[in-house]
Amino acid sequence: LKIYTVFSVAIVLRQTGFANESLCCVLISLRWTFLPVYDKNPFMIIPENLKYNDKGLIPAIIQDWKTNEVLMMAYMNDASLKKTVESGFTWYWSRSRQKFWQKGETSGHVQRVKDIFYDCDQDTLLIKVEQTGPACHTGERSCFFRSFAGNASGEHT
Amino acid sequence: LKIYTVFSVAIVLRQTGFANESLCCVLISLRWTFLPVYDKNPFMIIPENLKYNDKGLIPAIIQDWKTNEVLMMAYMNDASLKKTVESGFTWYWSRSRQKFWQKGETSGHVQRVKDIFYDCDQDTLLIKVEQTGPACHTGERSCFFRSFAGNASGEHT
Repeated sequence: LKIYTVFSVAIVLRQTGFANESLCCVLISLRWTFLPVYDKNPFMIIPENLKYNDKGLIPAIIQDWKTNEVLMMAYMNDASLKKTVESGFTWYWSRSRQKFWQKGETSGHVQRVKDIFYDCDQDTLLIKVEQTGPACHTGERSCFFRSFAGNASGEHT
Repeated sequence: LKIYTVFSVAIVLRQTGFANESLCCVLISLRWTFLPVYDKNPFMIIPENLKYNDKGLIPAIIQDWKTNEVLMMAYMNDASLKKTVESGFTWYWSRSRQKFWQKGETSGHVQRVKDIFYDCDQDTLLIKVEQTGPACHTGERSCFFRSFAGNASGEHT
């Protein structure tokens, strides 16, 4: 149920006298508590045939949904992909720390998921996001800010 | 040495009488045979601190240099990256077949390298290419032609 549907129903119930303010608040709270997953990403289905590598991971390429700029690459496991789809924000699996992390959990530079694509081999994800702030921990917009040509010409060194 | 520099020198030598046609041809051939690497990508330098995974591979995201569309992802090892920089076309390492392959070697759908970026962790490459024909073996422009949202709405199934 979309939150605005619940709001509309609550307002109609209130106006027609079928519910008082308290009941309306309860209705909205119930919806907010028990149906967040369905509402936040009602149209995303994780394909069953995704292939994870021998460590149970799948690489996820993160791309700006408007400019198509590639921002970063990180790894997800089965559970962090579910968390990503359910929350609408990117969650990764840190190979070095062996734990989940939400992108931007400390910096606030979160990534709101717009859509998730998967490739012909079902072993790589391409996630289109709305990026808040820079994607790279260095403060650069994209983690791919250095190039082989730039090295040669003296840029970015 | 740029090939047009060698040509110019050869022409000047011929015109001024310092060399005959044969000597000019030898000059040009020598340059073509022994210095192709330098000429084909004179401005690309492979960073020394790239990190390959425990199988000696580094993932390479392939992006259309004009539209920024992500076309595919594949793996390179040290040697195939060198081949890519030297030839100016993408060469990969096939994990399943354990051999080198040039993208498009049978289909003709080659990828001419425009620039190569590497990320802040030095463990992922982003290669901007001019793609001839479709990048995907299915005939689609990009390998990422199916989406989680598309699955839900019935597209691409």
